[in-house]
Amino acid sequence: MGFVGFELTKIVFLPSRKQTMQTILVLGAGLSSSSLIRYLLHNAPKYNWQVRITDQNIETVNHKINGNPHGVALSFNATSSAERLPEIEKADLVISMLPARFHVEVARDCISLKKNLITPSYVSPEMRALDAEAKAAGIIILNEIGVDPGIDHMSAMKIIDEIRAEGGTVTSFKSYCGGLISPESDDNPWNYKFTWNPRNVVLAGQGSAACYIEKGEYKYIPYHRLFSRLDQIDIPHYGSFEGYANRDSLSYRRVYGLDEIPTIFRGTLRKAGFATSWNVFVLLGMTDDSYTLANAEGMTARNFLNAFLPYESGVSVEDKLMRFLGNDPEIFDKISWLGFFDNSEIIGFKDATPAQLLEKILVRKWALKPGDKDMLVMYHEFFYELNGEKRKISSSMVNIGEDQVYTSMSNTVGLPVAIAAKMILTGALSLKGVQIPVLAEMYTPILDELSTFGITFIEKKDR
Amino acid sequence: MGFVGFELTKIVFLPSRKQTMQTILVLGAGLSSSSLIRYLLHNAPKYNWQVRITDQNIETVNHKINGNPHGVALSFNATSSAERLPEIEKADLVISMLPARFHVEVARDCISLKKNLITPSYVSPEMRALDAEAKAAGIIILNEIGVDPGIDHMSAMKIIDEIRAEGGTVTSFKSYCGGLISPESDDNPWNYKFTWNPRNVVLAGQGSAACYIEKGEYKYIPYHRLFSRLDQIDIPHYGSFEGYANRDSLSYRRVYGLDEIPTIFRGTLRKAGFATSWNVFVLLGMTDDSYTLANAEGMTARNFLNAFLPYESGVSVEDKLMRFLGNDPEIFDKISWLGFFDNSEIIGFKDATPAQLLEKILVRKWALKPGDKDMLVMYHEFFYELNGEKRKISSSMVNIGEDQVYTSMSNTVGLPVAIAAKMILTGALSLKGVQIPVLAEMYTPILDELSTFGITFIEKKDR
Repeated sequence: MGFVGFELTKIVFLPSRKQTMQTILVLGAGLSSSSLIRYLLHNAPKYNWQVRITDQNIETVNHKINGNPHGVALSFNATSSAERLPEIEKADLVISMLPARFHVEVARDCISLKKNLITPSYVSPEMRALDAEAKAAGIIILNEIGVDPGIDHMSAMKIIDEIRAEGGTVTSFKSYCGGLISPESDDNPWNYKFTWNPRNVVLAGQGSAACYIEKGEYKYIPYHRLFSRLDQIDIPHYGSFEGYANRDSLSYRRVYGLDEIPTIFRGTLRKAGFATSWNVFVLLGMTDDSYTLANAEGMTARNFLNAFLPYESGVSVEDKLMRFLGNDPEIFDKISWLGFFDNSEIIGFKDATPAQLLEKILVRKWALKPGDKDMLVMYHEFFYELNGEKRKISSSMVNIGEDQVYTSMSNTVGLPVAIAAKMILTGALSLKGVQIPVLAEMYTPILDELSTFGITFIEKKDR
Repeated sequence: MGFVGFELTKIVFLPSRKQTMQTILVLGAGLSSSSLIRYLLHNAPKYNWQVRITDQNIETVNHKINGNPHGVALSFNATSSAERLPEIEKADLVISMLPARFHVEVARDCISLKKNLITPSYVSPEMRALDAEAKAAGIIILNEIGVDPGIDHMSAMKIIDEIRAEGGTVTSFKSYCGGLISPESDDNPWNYKFTWNPRNVVLAGQGSAACYIEKGEYKYIPYHRLFSRLDQIDIPHYGSFEGYANRDSLSYRRVYGLDEIPTIFRGTLRKAGFATSWNVFVLLGMTDDSYTLANAEGMTARNFLNAFLPYESGVSVEDKLMRFLGNDPEIFDKISWLGFFDNSEIIGFKDATPAQLLEKILVRKWALKPGDKDMLVMYHEFFYELNGEKRKISSSMVNIGEDQVYTSMSNTVGLPVAIAAKMILTGALSLKGVQIPVLAEMYTPILDELSTFGITFIEKKDR
């Protein structure tokens, strides 16, 4: 007994970094945490980590730890400051995979306890305001280090820095990203399945108009025109895609140090033909989540569609839709394939919003089948001037998921977070304050390691 | 002196209702109170009323009272309960012309002091919940007694009650109302000027989808389709109008006791051709008030329009708009007439929303000129079945303002309020609780008296 006590005391005072166990606290063990947790547990023996993971559902955590002795399953409520504080106290690094709205509270706790924090989410103004406090506490709060935001920042900044190093000036930057279905699992006329939260897909693009700048002209696109103002993107071996504007592209000028750039645009990618058909739901008003349908209960899919088409005596729903489509048989067939003309089954429920009923109809047809894999596609296009010449670089990344646990979404979100965690714990990253991964000291090692996982960008230069 | 004192004492104890002075408290003396105040002051000697009027701006009140000895000008803050309570205490009847959001607070004060209240605004759920308390206090809280809501309720219920008295069943009710410019002042290609709050005109129809029911089918129209789903209405001597759906028509089934009616629709009226052109601003996103333009400062009208059109190298704003319009020279000319191609004058300001800049451009061209008069148009169309036969009644009202103080809007809002006030004070209306004017005991005398002011409905029956 005395001997054990002596040993413990000795360990505590050992100077070796390698020997000292470090504790990582992961808040949230949902789908997007799978690859993160796998990486941390896999590397835990090498770096002497203990990985403490909490989720409301302890089964989820146990399933992900799968008996690995370096993992500790917890099920406290990570959204409660009182419950998480004692665990943050024990940690060397906290990784918050909670919904984005909780990150600022977690960051405040990490500042008060002087613990490093990583989140994959966008830096909110409240988070940005914590920069000085984080620096004073001697910690890093690293954000936007998943995918869109994350891998997009790193792969874009690598090229921007290269162009600058060469002496060039970037005049146009367009960047697109999409979570899609892999070609081998793409077996429906929409070339789309739900590879992440269906509700977010249905509501995508709602809110303020999207904005960007092109040749010095500011452009604004309201939601109801978003899916009709499309760019075409061709990616070798993967075919034709379309991109629609993604929210506020203007703020990325500051992020990338491109304040004077005449053209900057960020877009969301879908397979060609998707957006034009999706636009029908938007125009009809079927994606609206702001009110409930008075007659939602008892509605069939056909009733639901008809509620957004005018009344016309003796004219079928099919004929009214076809007229609305300006006689486009291809879009008509896609909508028909989703089951919108079915009148036999009640899909409505009390106080449903249009968006909820649309989601319910879509989930039946766009759900992943066993064995289906997802695909993450990213595409950057730069124009720049070098020695008076106009040049172009494009960079594309296509990544396919392993299965429905280690999806491409989970890998592309979780691996950069995990690699960054390793860099912080090993002292390879010494930045402090509220950060995002736009500096070479971060993106170079992370992109290098990502490529060992098949997350690789193919660059193409044109004169 | 003794004699005078004796006389005063004698008057106080006189039992005659005629002799006892009654006090009316009017909260708010803005534009829509002009005709109300004129009526009350004109009738004050006959009914022995004192009319106490408050507004933040005492000059506005003095101007409206114009030396009439029956009026008392006040300038306390009517939105403050502490400031209004002593004045409500003195009153026999309170008329709230405040913004609608203050009415519930005023109603609570009136309940606690047992004073009758009239407001021209819609009954909110909070207001409806005060019904039992108002009845217990022995007061009436009469709402929706201006125009749309107000005159529309009364004129519609008169016909609905007549059809029922005959033994008929109403199968369809469509009702339209619009505040427009009078034909003699209609001198622009839009056939429209701002006869009320321009901001409300720019934002009209935003929010949840409009909903109605037609032949038993519920229909929902999102904002961005509102101005392309139009009914045509012809009114003898006044030409062709168009009507677009006005918010939630479904709730009027209960209001009019038409719970089982297969078709009910309420719409807003504009002169024919207006909505199709207005739709261009809606589709482009120029009516959006939910975000600020990053480059608002320094914008010309032309820049503002161009911000919502795609970038195209070497293509003029005119050509891009014309393409967007599908080559419609008539709409193009209307937009051109508003000055949207002007590039010489800065109309933008810092942190402006699209809706604010649109309003600023429109106000210059749609402002009333000296001598211009407004016009209020209302149109009801009923189909009903009587003895197995299908019949139709239409009822239309067109009212033209006197000038820019006693506008049609002011007359049609203020006169029904004023007449109702008289009925309450003379004991002609004994209803208690939270009410709207749908009962014959209210609408018959009010519609009769309104017709003496030229607010008259023309009914037309078809077999």
